[in-house]
Amino acid sequence: MDLNRFLSIARGDEPADLLLRNGQIVNVFTGEIVAGDVAIADDTLVGVGPTYEAEKEIDLGGRYVCPGLIDAHVHVESSMVAPAQFARAVVPRGTTTVVTDPHEIANVAGSDGVRYMLIASEGLPLTVLVNLPSSVPATDMATAGAELDAVDLKALADLPRIAGLAEFMNVPGAVLGLPGALEKLRAFRDRVIDGHAPGTSGKWLQAYVGAGPGSDHECTTVDEMLEKLRLGMYVFIREATGAKNLRTLVPAVTPHNARRCGFATDDRHPSDLLDEGHIDYLIRLAVEEGLNPVAAIRMATLNVAEWFRLRDRGALAPGRRADVVVFSDLKDFRAEMVFSGGRLVARDGDLVGDWPEPSVDDADVRDAVRGSVRVDWEAIDLSVPAEGDQMRVIGIVPDQIVTQSLVMEPTVVGGEAVSDPERDLLKLAVIERHRATGNVGIGFVQGFGLQHGAIAGSVGHDAHNLIVAGCDDTSMWTAARAVADLQGGLVVVNGEKVLATVPLPIGGLMSDRPLEKVRQQMDAAVDAAKDLGASLHDPFMTLGFLALEVIPSLKLTDRGLVDVDAFEIVPLWVE
Amino acid sequence: MDLNRFLSIARGDEPADLLLRNGQIVNVFTGEIVAGDVAIADDTLVGVGPTYEAEKEIDLGGRYVCPGLIDAHVHVESSMVAPAQFARAVVPRGTTTVVTDPHEIANVAGSDGVRYMLIASEGLPLTVLVNLPSSVPATDMATAGAELDAVDLKALADLPRIAGLAEFMNVPGAVLGLPGALEKLRAFRDRVIDGHAPGTSGKWLQAYVGAGPGSDHECTTVDEMLEKLRLGMYVFIREATGAKNLRTLVPAVTPHNARRCGFATDDRHPSDLLDEGHIDYLIRLAVEEGLNPVAAIRMATLNVAEWFRLRDRGALAPGRRADVVVFSDLKDFRAEMVFSGGRLVARDGDLVGDWPEPSVDDADVRDAVRGSVRVDWEAIDLSVPAEGDQMRVIGIVPDQIVTQSLVMEPTVVGGEAVSDPERDLLKLAVIERHRATGNVGIGFVQGFGLQHGAIAGSVGHDAHNLIVAGCDDTSMWTAARAVADLQGGLVVVNGEKVLATVPLPIGGLMSDRPLEKVRQQMDAAVDAAKDLGASLHDPFMTLGFLALEVIPSLKLTDRGLVDVDAFEIVPLWVE
Repeated sequence: MDLNRFLSIARGDEPADLLLRNGQIVNVFTGEIVAGDVAIADDTLVGVGPTYEAEKEIDLGGRYVCPGLIDAHVHVESSMVAPAQFARAVVPRGTTTVVTDPHEIANVAGSDGVRYMLIASEGLPLTVLVNLPSSVPATDMATAGAELDAVDLKALADLPRIAGLAEFMNVPGAVLGLPGALEKLRAFRDRVIDGHAPGTSGKWLQAYVGAGPGSDHECTTVDEMLEKLRLGMYVFIREATGAKNLRTLVPAVTPHNARRCGFATDDRHPSDLLDEGHIDYLIRLAVEEGLNPVAAIRMATLNVAEWFRLRDRGALAPGRRADVVVFSDLKDFRAEMVFSGGRLVARDGDLVGDWPEPSVDDADVRDAVRGSVRVDWEAIDLSVPAEGDQMRVIGIVPDQIVTQSLVMEPTVVGGEAVSDPERDLLKLAVIERHRATGNVGIGFVQGFGLQHGAIAGSVGHDAHNLIVAGCDDTSMWTAARAVADLQGGLVVVNGEKVLATVPLPIGGLMSDRPLEKVRQQMDAAVDAAKDLGASLHDPFMTLGFLALEVIPSLKLTDRGLVDVDAFEIVPLWVE
Repeated sequence: MDLNRFLSIARGDEPADLLLRNGQIVNVFTGEIVAGDVAIADDTLVGVGPTYEAEKEIDLGGRYVCPGLIDAHVHVESSMVAPAQFARAVVPRGTTTVVTDPHEIANVAGSDGVRYMLIASEGLPLTVLVNLPSSVPATDMATAGAELDAVDLKALADLPRIAGLAEFMNVPGAVLGLPGALEKLRAFRDRVIDGHAPGTSGKWLQAYVGAGPGSDHECTTVDEMLEKLRLGMYVFIREATGAKNLRTLVPAVTPHNARRCGFATDDRHPSDLLDEGHIDYLIRLAVEEGLNPVAAIRMATLNVAEWFRLRDRGALAPGRRADVVVFSDLKDFRAEMVFSGGRLVARDGDLVGDWPEPSVDDADVRDAVRGSVRVDWEAIDLSVPAEGDQMRVIGIVPDQIVTQSLVMEPTVVGGEAVSDPERDLLKLAVIERHRATGNVGIGFVQGFGLQHGAIAGSVGHDAHNLIVAGCDDTSMWTAARAVADLQGGLVVVNGEKVLATVPLPIGGLMSDRPLEKVRQQMDAAVDAAKDLGASLHDPFMTLGFLALEVIPSLKLTDRGLVDVDAFEIVPLWVE
């Protein structure tokens, strides 16, 4: 806001716009709770503590008031909705800032994907800061839609709302000093560089920290967390849909080390966002685990702001952004009023006011994220000539993204290896869908339990090619085509009949519908798959990670089967 | 250091340069003490914790090892020596970084004074960061040697080792939004802005914080400190020669608010630096007052580094600068080994190695700080025609810089008001000495106790004009001329005889001799003044502050007597 107006109000010469009276202020600087008022003008806090004259007053009746919550690391794409819909879900929970890593959309649409995330998050009741994805593509063993090298990233670095460089996953590249990795680290040496070093310790961790990354959200044990904190890393305790670390790690937070601890959600699916919540849920869990509520709120606000060098938020203090949450129960944090930039944006769990979806006027960006499924169907052949007696088969491990690497005899019909539902053996295909190269990788998978039909999707980490598993080729063709017809999405088919769809037209990753609608569609699709015999809790989540060639043991990309432990492409047939 | 070499050593592929083995590492990130080793290569920490191969090893035998200490706010000029000599005094104490505000030399030599401080502190075993003086001159009621406006400051802002904007003393300017103040604050809005708001509280403090300044080293009460911490200010607890706040404030430091507390020495005179110490002394005092030693070390390292955004120091972690202190007793912190940038620079209280004084090759800078006493003697007239029956007299308050505003009858001889030692009434003159304007302010002062002769000096806060108090005009003339002949300094004279001198040829503020020598000269000068009857503990310190027109109640500048409470120049004679 205008500094002269700020000063005039702050010193008491003219009234504020809004006074939140009679609150218990959670002071994240000192760890205290102090009774007082909060005065706001325009988008800014003008007075924290004293009573001011104001155009409008809200009596808090002794309720607590704290800064808006900050998510240190999230992939908005994992919510399967556009940023505006994501905001609708998380703002009423008390989240007013997220640092998102558009790793998924960048794998589809490169720099334009990053720009999409910026444009589509403009003017929301949520501040969306974008951390530049450091690892697109994840490897050269799959065909992603784009590649972002140091030069590409540098070209984006000075756009508004760019936080820095996101989770630097290439640990060997950093530690061994490989050129591509060092170029990126050097390009961002004066910026925030988030780390991503699951299990890295000892001398490799010393090297990794010195190379630049200064945070980590991948800790899974207390020892790992303490080792990283001792080297000065910020540790963001994660509670994602697929990776739940909070209950393990929170007991290691002490008054002495807490200042470098924060919270991150990483990936939360629609149902978890709706049923459990967002950062508010992490606060509740942490308090349930015995953490002091004020410490938990500091972790969700100031600590993360300090890491990201966000001096305009993360605390209630004059001159900072008026991102404010009002709540009643320290032991059961539930946002009752949420203010973003001085505006009441949510009340009792619902968004207040009209927040039109930002329109994406940049034609390049729009074209890059829409119509992103491009397949040369003429070049695709799903048949597998039976050329051996033993073949590699991906063995699903329920509810995990690691797989087993199995060796099985094929079921052969007419000289071809085919799906055999009786043996729970399905054909799996990954069809390159970004550049219509005609690449297709084919393998077999055990563990879906599907008896008829096929399931398919355009969410296939990290390259996000079209992935389809089915009981027969007709169903697989139908499913693949259906995903393409939707321009991205998840489908369940049987023969030539499409049974359920979850359209994800934005990059093949995100819906353009509200979160609740997507959740209904997801539930219907999962039910349809289960009707066909699918036995997994969420067959689409499992499907989506079968292509992730950096997670052991056997995966499938459009280039073929990947032996992740050997880090190389391997043939279907065992010699 | 070279990143590839760093990585190679950190991951263990080649030996480090130096290993400090078998230490107890004070971990300022987590507040723990953890047994381990510290590996160094070039100027950088490469490993903290694990054992490494190294070209050279030092067995610490279980001694403690912590980061080099940081002084958050100091005026090097107050030590009365050049930066290299200041470094000689403080580095063996464990200080490896200071943030100095060259406010005094800038009042003499403007931007060239700031440049002098940068040049004269290059290549020392101490990192001298320079915070740009925000308030030169202090007011327009005195003639300083220079003026630094927002444009001048901005021109210096991007020089190496510039920290930001120093103690923003113009509280009314900031709070009331006066143009000159706001220009400076706006020019540094993205940089560190240190505050200086003694006693400011309530709504004025809210406005001040929102205007930009984010720290304060002027707290004198616990309430003041807590109010400032709650608004997000960093509070630097000061223990200066003339302002001792540590014992009062340390009891208010808690594990929850400590992260925003640090230490500052502000102004420490030679004898205090030599007899008590520097930041090490503040740590000892704080521990004596009951503060946890690790908390005290965090305040002297990481916390200050975080405020100044110094991510390369303030902690022992791979990739940070190898500024390291080894010591034996947590309850009696005494540096035994000090490393600066990986080099052993002090051992058992003495500097190690040869550290030549940086030569000031820039002729403009050299000329600006040398030969800084320029007086138009022809224009100076010390006589005071007796034009009234009652005159204003400055009343000294022993050991304080505030004064009383007295009204007394003059002693008149030959139609002139003269000094009258029997009434302890001395004539006082402030002679403009920067631009030879011929300005001279004359008044009278009570409280020195001098019976014969005169004392004079070129240290006269903040404009640093020539200030002289004497029992007769001959002595005053001799004293003033003697200071000019020295090109700055402190003198004691009797009649036409110069009894003692402390030459301060650098800007009239700093000696070019070692601290021990200056201390001897100071002791001799004080003794000489006492021989003449001076009754104060340190008459030169008192003299030096009689010209400071922002400290109540009655002061004298080259423009005349200043009624500080009315904030205006007033005549000698009371109507």
